Amino acid sequence: MDKTEILEKIATRLRIHSVKMTTKAGSGHPTTCLSMADLTACLFFDEMKYDPKNPDNWSNDELVLSKGHAAPILWAAYAEAGIIPEKSLMNLRKITSVLEGHPTPRMKWVKSATGSLGQGLSVGVGMALAMKLGKSPARVYVMSGDGECAEGSVWEAVNMAFLHKLRNLCLIVDINRLSQSEQTMHGHDIKAYERKFKAFGWDVISIDGHKINEILRAFKKARENAMPTAILAKTIKGKGVSFVEDKNGWHGKPLMGDDSKRALEELGSMPSVDAKKYVRKPKKTQNQPVAKRYNFKRTVYKDKAATRRAYGNALLNLGKINETVVALDGDVKNSTYAEDFFEAFPKRSFQSYIAEQNMVGMSIGMSAKGYLPFLATFSAFLSRAHDQIRMSAYSFSNIKFCGSHSGVSIGADGPSQMGLEDLGIFRPMPGCAVLYPSDAYSTEACVESMAKHKGLAYIRTTRPATPLLYSKEDKFPIGGSKVLKKSKNDAVAVIGAGITVHEALKAYEQLKAEKISVRIIDAYSVEPVDKDNISREVEEAGGKVVVAEDHFQNGGLGDAVAQALSGKAEIIHLAVKDLPRSGKPEELLDKYGIDANHIKKSVKKLISR
Amino acid sequence: MDKTEILEKIATRLRIHSVKMTTKAGSGHPTTCLSMADLTACLFFDEMKYDPKNPDNWSNDELVLSKGHAAPILWAAYAEAGIIPEKSLMNLRKITSVLEGHPTPRMKWVKSATGSLGQGLSVGVGMALAMKLGKSPARVYVMSGDGECAEGSVWEAVNMAFLHKLRNLCLIVDINRLSQSEQTMHGHDIKAYERKFKAFGWDVISIDGHKINEILRAFKKARENAMPTAILAKTIKGKGVSFVEDKNGWHGKPLMGDDSKRALEELGSMPSVDAKKYVRKPKKTQNQPVAKRYNFKRTVYKDKAATRRAYGNALLNLGKINETVVALDGDVKNSTYAEDFFEAFPKRSFQSYIAEQNMVGMSIGMSAKGYLPFLATFSAFLSRAHDQIRMSAYSFSNIKFCGSHSGVSIGADGPSQMGLEDLGIFRPMPGCAVLYPSDAYSTEACVESMAKHKGLAYIRTTRPATPLLYSKEDKFPIGGSKVLKKSKNDAVAVIGAGITVHEALKAYEQLKAEKISVRIIDAYSVEPVDKDNISREVEEAGGKVVVAEDHFQNGGLGDAVAQALSGKAEIIHLAVKDLPRSGKPEELLDKYGIDANHIKKSVKKLISR
Repeated sequence: MDKTEILEKIATRLRIHSVKMTTKAGSGHPTTCLSMADLTACLFFDEMKYDPKNPDNWSNDELVLSKGHAAPILWAAYAEAGIIPEKSLMNLRKITSVLEGHPTPRMKWVKSATGSLGQGLSVGVGMALAMKLGKSPARVYVMSGDGECAEGSVWEAVNMAFLHKLRNLCLIVDINRLSQSEQTMHGHDIKAYERKFKAFGWDVISIDGHKINEILRAFKKARENAMPTAILAKTIKGKGVSFVEDKNGWHGKPLMGDDSKRALEELGSMPSVDAKKYVRKPKKTQNQPVAKRYNFKRTVYKDKAATRRAYGNALLNLGKINETVVALDGDVKNSTYAEDFFEAFPKRSFQSYIAEQNMVGMSIGMSAKGYLPFLATFSAFLSRAHDQIRMSAYSFSNIKFCGSHSGVSIGADGPSQMGLEDLGIFRPMPGCAVLYPSDAYSTEACVESMAKHKGLAYIRTTRPATPLLYSKEDKFPIGGSKVLKKSKNDAVAVIGAGITVHEALKAYEQLKAEKISVRIIDAYSVEPVDKDNISREVEEAGGKVVVAEDHFQNGGLGDAVAQALSGKAEIIHLAVKDLPRSGKPEELLDKYGIDANHIKKSVKKLISR
Repeated sequence: MDKTEILEKIATRLRIHSVKMTTKAGSGHPTTCLSMADLTACLFFDEMKYDPKNPDNWSNDELVLSKGHAAPILWAAYAEAGIIPEKSLMNLRKITSVLEGHPTPRMKWVKSATGSLGQGLSVGVGMALAMKLGKSPARVYVMSGDGECAEGSVWEAVNMAFLHKLRNLCLIVDINRLSQSEQTMHGHDIKAYERKFKAFGWDVISIDGHKINEILRAFKKARENAMPTAILAKTIKGKGVSFVEDKNGWHGKPLMGDDSKRALEELGSMPSVDAKKYVRKPKKTQNQPVAKRYNFKRTVYKDKAATRRAYGNALLNLGKINETVVALDGDVKNSTYAEDFFEAFPKRSFQSYIAEQNMVGMSIGMSAKGYLPFLATFSAFLSRAHDQIRMSAYSFSNIKFCGSHSGVSIGADGPSQMGLEDLGIFRPMPGCAVLYPSDAYSTEACVESMAKHKGLAYIRTTRPATPLLYSKEDKFPIGGSKVLKKSKNDAVAVIGAGITVHEALKAYEQLKAEKISVRIIDAYSVEPVDKDNISREVEEAGGKVVVAEDHFQNGGLGDAVAQALSGKAEIIHLAVKDLPRSGKPEELLDKYGIDANHIKKSVKKLISR
């Protein structure tokens, strides 16, 4: 058999698997698998180089299935490659199987979860940059649908690939014309896609996605191109099963009963070919970068300093002892203070411009390849990448997020810049640590804690400078809290984090002058919140609590404390309860009721009850 | 004076105002105002038609300042047009002034808040579509920065304007080369922008943004074009003040002390020209569309039905009696059931394709022009537009969001499709109603409640069909709750919403058989949660509560109840506490501990304490 015939047979095997798997599961997307079967056969059994025994071989080419709903054909390809048993395919979507409805890294060959469309190219760009940085000879392939090219995030990633001339990156767009509910924006107008990718500086190759020879030629050409390549493959959704081919209304529907029977008849008997033999292995094995050290040298502060300034210092010093640390910026590095790292380590610094979604997507790719991404922007603008952040959790990524300029304490720039919902983004994600330090020393200690933590972590920093409360020896583990003021006569506990810790301390002094004693707790670990310690301290302080935070009322520290102290304490919760506006920081802390004066009043209110 | 000379003088006035305002405020972005002064003079005093006495005149041209940090020159232009007193400019950024650091509709000529970059064009597209729908002769102008063109959302909006051939839309890109922390992606390479906009099907005009005659010619040509037009204006950041012109490091910095003095010397004395005389008014005044009726005819259900199915029915019937209702879809209308509205009212239906950010941005524009947008997608994918949703709150928009396929109860599609953080997106925004109905009748009643509500509202729907619990006469006001089971002997209260109400009812029957009596509460209004009623009911039921929800542990109903019942009840909170996976709905409700069996066990645990 010649190569073409072999690959055609493998493609038919992939089609048969895809139909059978989804019929057995009773759900899934067979028609979108059928359109990409020929492309997949060529990718897995001619173009890509990978070591079927080791998904983490640093020399493996990587595939990101951006059109995650085509998971069945991905699993089928791994079965054909001998990586998983063929019979496991019949466990598709079962609660006991790693072959989920959309790919997740529970299946160890999958490096990032997909299924929220338009994100795969960003992940691929991150991987391609990591490969360049780590001198891997490998290439990255991203398989995308046509419908998802409507997502703006795709064009953010396209820009970045162009700017870095990522010739080790190849995007395949499976242009099957039909989206979930109707025809895509451009249907089969391949020229429309050509114009766009070319205008963004890419090399473009348009092919018939069902012709093996055209596909192979395109991959070869892509390897030779000096720029990233988009292979625009015109395909037929449902290809190979006549009664669903190019028909609307068949997205996300398995072929059941007679339909399945008829489809399998049309596809014919399972072709006899041992696909495993055609897996191409990389020449040599290298090691992934491994992070080792986190105990960076602390800066000594003499006077008050902004926590964002301390974040920048910590990142720089961490970068000096840990070469896997990479930094990403959304064009605000002079505000987040990531700029010092950028100046010291330009090769490990990635200017993502004003495109937060792609910044997070790239971080997923970099994390998947063993790097330790620290990304920073205004906390308000992390909301722009919420979907990518969500998918980074499902990707089991190891990413460290920093959101600066949090809360009304930024002052006159106004609400669009304030970041009052960021704790509400990061708290819900299981396993994500959420830290909100109040001074420079605790910030640096929090950076060490988050760097060590395997998984997602978020640090929230503040714009104005705040007084020093701790020393450079103090530890701030995830899940901890600090008691700053304590006596036997405490009538109320005041819990703050970040800027409100300082307001609480001011209130403490004012109340002390009035002979009222309160306990002050710095709940720097918002998630997990220090339930045990806070419960004990609050009980000692009479079970009365004032929580003050520079965040909207819902989603933040108040919710965390309310959950932790359920049934055990009477709580007054001070937070931003209206849509805020421009003004001076101190005016806004007053207007929205989270300053020392409001804390003092709330303490008195609790005492008088 | 000829027109050019007049406009040059007005531009100088705008420059002088911008410098003085930001110096007085001690913060702000003068240099980005200076680059767009000539463009602004031409827009406000020659090109745009508006009635300076009435910001809501339906025939007014609209301006969206996408580069919201240039707010000072916007305020200056309104002062020059005689709309606000010149002396009010010195109140920039004060807590007492509507002239905020970035524009918000507290200043009534501003129709949408800006300041999170790359969103203004979507708003403009929404306005332009609304004008076409409402037969307004007016045009929409969007003033954008160059840096923000890196945001993918811009290209989503560019696509939509092309598809609808919005010739009433004109985008001006102020290409001043410098972004906040460094040069933009393309610097002064105007051709790079030309290629992109042309490839996306737009008409493009490149000009020197400081030459009045070129600007005026471009605006005239744009009016004649058959397609939306991008005017690519090459400008100098800081233009007019030699020592900041085209210099990095001057973003977001006011000119203080001697710098200010020198700048004002260079700009010269305030030119004498009465700009008000050059305001061009629209020919006639029309009325904006006004929404009147909300009490649509209810569907009669005979058997169990999915709440998403009921949402589709309600939307269709609301559309029949209220012509301001428009529907937007992100290519999942056959899943959210918005499709019935799309079939019945194609002119009021907007297919936004897989581009959720632009879908929300367009809704802000449509709401600003008096329409009542209902937009629906999977709740998971609303996270994609979190930043736009956030900005819709600051825009005081009247938008109704529907998130379908919420929670692990969707089953085998897996985590990327589940929507377990959506309550955490909508609960924090002050003024946003969050509703989570459990059956078809309550869903329809909730749609009426949210339609009547002025402001943002979110409804969360469920994939599987659920049994009927209510009748078509029942009311479900925002802020309410329903007690479904109640007796004098209740030992525990179980609070659920959506799918978990049904699990709670199953647990009720099982516990009844064991002679354990529990109170069942449907907390369909998650925000505001029905604090008074729930507190009373819980107190009667012994102060012991089980909360069960198909959402992550943090950010949702459990947080809402914990806040509401602080110090008053012992709570066991059942929610999704791990990253979930594929499986059957009933298997997943069990695995993540939120089904009847887990509720039953928790009730017993509380009783035994």
